[in-house]
Amino acid sequence: MVIGGDAAGMSAASQARRMRGPDELEIVAFERGHFSSYSACGIPYWVGGEVAGRDELIARTPEEHRERSIDLRMRTEVTELDVAGGRVRSRELDTGTEVWTSYDKLVIATGARPVRPRIPGIDAPGVHGVQTLDDGQALLDSLAATQGRRAVVVGAGYIGVEMAEALIRRGYEVTVVNRGPEPMSTLDPDMGRLVHESMTGMDITMVDDAEVTKILTGDDGRARAVATTSDEYPADVVVLGIGVRPETSLARSAGLPLGEHGGLLTDLAMRVRGHENIWAGGDCVEVLDLVSGRERHIALGTHANKHGQVIGTNAGGGYATFPGVVGTAVSKVCDLEIARTGLREKDARRAGLQYVSATIESTSRAGYYPGAAPMTVKMIAERRTGRLLGVQIVGREGAAKRVDIAAVALTAGMTVDQMTALDLGYAPPFSPVWDPILVAARKSSAAVRRG
Amino acid sequence: MVIGGDAAGMSAASQARRMRGPDELEIVAFERGHFSSYSACGIPYWVGGEVAGRDELIARTPEEHRERSIDLRMRTEVTELDVAGGRVRSRELDTGTEVWTSYDKLVIATGARPVRPRIPGIDAPGVHGVQTLDDGQALLDSLAATQGRRAVVVGAGYIGVEMAEALIRRGYEVTVVNRGPEPMSTLDPDMGRLVHESMTGMDITMVDDAEVTKILTGDDGRARAVATTSDEYPADVVVLGIGVRPETSLARSAGLPLGEHGGLLTDLAMRVRGHENIWAGGDCVEVLDLVSGRERHIALGTHANKHGQVIGTNAGGGYATFPGVVGTAVSKVCDLEIARTGLREKDARRAGLQYVSATIESTSRAGYYPGAAPMTVKMIAERRTGRLLGVQIVGREGAAKRVDIAAVALTAGMTVDQMTALDLGYAPPFSPVWDPILVAARKSSAAVRRG
Repeated sequence: MVIGGDAAGMSAASQARRMRGPDELEIVAFERGHFSSYSACGIPYWVGGEVAGRDELIARTPEEHRERSIDLRMRTEVTELDVAGGRVRSRELDTGTEVWTSYDKLVIATGARPVRPRIPGIDAPGVHGVQTLDDGQALLDSLAATQGRRAVVVGAGYIGVEMAEALIRRGYEVTVVNRGPEPMSTLDPDMGRLVHESMTGMDITMVDDAEVTKILTGDDGRARAVATTSDEYPADVVVLGIGVRPETSLARSAGLPLGEHGGLLTDLAMRVRGHENIWAGGDCVEVLDLVSGRERHIALGTHANKHGQVIGTNAGGGYATFPGVVGTAVSKVCDLEIARTGLREKDARRAGLQYVSATIESTSRAGYYPGAAPMTVKMIAERRTGRLLGVQIVGREGAAKRVDIAAVALTAGMTVDQMTALDLGYAPPFSPVWDPILVAARKSSAAVRRG
Repeated sequence: MVIGGDAAGMSAASQARRMRGPDELEIVAFERGHFSSYSACGIPYWVGGEVAGRDELIARTPEEHRERSIDLRMRTEVTELDVAGGRVRSRELDTGTEVWTSYDKLVIATGARPVRPRIPGIDAPGVHGVQTLDDGQALLDSLAATQGRRAVVVGAGYIGVEMAEALIRRGYEVTVVNRGPEPMSTLDPDMGRLVHESMTGMDITMVDDAEVTKILTGDDGRARAVATTSDEYPADVVVLGIGVRPETSLARSAGLPLGEHGGLLTDLAMRVRGHENIWAGGDCVEVLDLVSGRERHIALGTHANKHGQVIGTNAGGGYATFPGVVGTAVSKVCDLEIARTGLREKDARRAGLQYVSATIESTSRAGYYPGAAPMTVKMIAERRTGRLLGVQIVGREGAAKRVDIAAVALTAGMTVDQMTALDLGYAPPFSPVWDPILVAARKSSAAVRRG
């Protein structure tokens, strides 16, 4: 039995089905929404018009799952989990019908819920989250119904900056209001500053260090402005891109173990700790950060799919593990590319690690090759050992996916000195003769030697 | 003292100068050509018109080196190396003056020479190599002087295919005549086939399995066609892109140790084996292949620069090593991207390794995201252990540099099963939710399990 019909849950169901036929394993899945197996990460591109329609974001429809003998029950919310009794209570949202259903094996994939600050006006028409396909449709409907062209995005993490791009593409004047000192708090502030400057260069109004206190509404009840402690920003539409928290209220009520970020805690086989027959994956779990050795919460489709794969294999009687993450993330805002992996400076401090850092500027291609775009790479290495701790990149075309080099190096526990010798692909259309990652590794390595 | 004023030699000189000032270390460098420190890899793009002029390919002029107290003697060929006497004889090519100069420490960076098959007509006007800036200028002059628009490229390795692109850009009808069963023999033939098909789709005439026997000349003595054992291909210009061999005649005469590919053999500090005070690097040396454990010859600017860095550090009294390569190479032909790292199937067999291979098709971005381009990834893993042995990629935008992920994994000795869990950057503009490398790793891992 699977609770949650999106990436983690349905990957688990599909993989379990690959392992065991319908005569061996019955699979029931509950999804409270209208859609299954869709790419929430694609919503900004649908809103921005780069993706033509909602259906393109749906990897597999409920009908397709059912054809594979997965009994997927849509618009059906699980309202209670009885672990001792091995059963769940579910409610059909359209009819209100409630039933208890027993399970032998349970997969919890309840996802995440967006953070909605409890401020006046937050529920007014014209204020939109972008977590689900329903949210995306509501936002598009709202945009179509509005004459005005002023949009305020609250939050400057990856959802916020992607939504800023989407609204720019739709022809809006965009203001991004952000609590932190710089946008993209997943980067160190010195790298976030580069994002701020680039976004300002795209005619996006960037407001940092700003706490939103209220959504002001007009006579019609619709949002008309976003107020901070010091200012007001007129808005014909407000988009919330503040981030998400694990959706674990069901698990919490059932007494399952949660971590400090509110996510379910699992073992390496994605089994909920202490429970032989319950697995959990996707946005509702915490994952081991291989660099810091601590648990983190990261809501990202690529992890959810991997979790589902591991869970489905194990629940289907095979064996697989999810070793953890290094914290890789890539985003873009128009032609700006932003990437990070591993620890920021403050993560390193929090983990008790002493470090050196080095920042370099290079280009995506040989300097003489057309389209060579500037790129800033920051590299953080452990003091004394020289072990790579993290990399952040801000640049243009060819910047973001270079972070994968560092992601593999982190996974392998390489030192920055070892990285200086990496045999990376070189040809003038693809890289300078010293790839930017190598340049950063050389500078970091020198910093480690100096102490 | 440095023999050879290009990437490896001048990187070594520059790095040694950074370590030791002119009062501590005198540096003399000999270069027989007209240019120092230039990007030979950029020549196809200069010929193709993407790079405006020759000077853009020059990283540092002789004058710039001299300003840093490096006594760079241009147009001066070293004609003899007296290892026992610790001296070299050099000749100024313009005056014929010969002198002996003593050294305490010697760096050999004599580069590579292009393969020129000994066939009739090979030296006729209109037949061009593209190894040096002088070669590039001669080819451009030849193109300017020719009315005809038919070009034949001999060889379909990376130089051959890059020159095919350059000539297409210049508006030529291009025929590529190639000895092997498919172009890009650095790939397995099944992947080379994809290159063949793509190049044919670019209106390039691809002739495989063809041995060039003769360059036919006209009444004016100029090349007019390329003859193979079975056919003739009319040509207004012929470009040789057959590859290179280490230029080690000087080293051979001096009795220095050469490997089976004709390159100098060094230790990990890039010291010529058995010689405390002689280093060698760049295209004239063999390097350790970390995957097969054997020596290889790879002529590539990025290695030359790394060698120079290591040599300069050591010659300057510091300590650095070059651990070896995994054999990464990336190339492009118009919008086709080609990449490889590690071993091909035949390399694995030659190294005594048993392997499984898996080939997958995926896309560079989320399937629904604009510009998502198809990509074929072949992955080779050792039987039983599952250790990654090699990856080959043929695709469009975003394909080539993904090979870096595999290059790092190879360096770290990862298994393909470990690779399935890599935390690679995911967002719809940059990758499907399963990066193509992860898809290939999953399929390879399944192949390893099946045995």
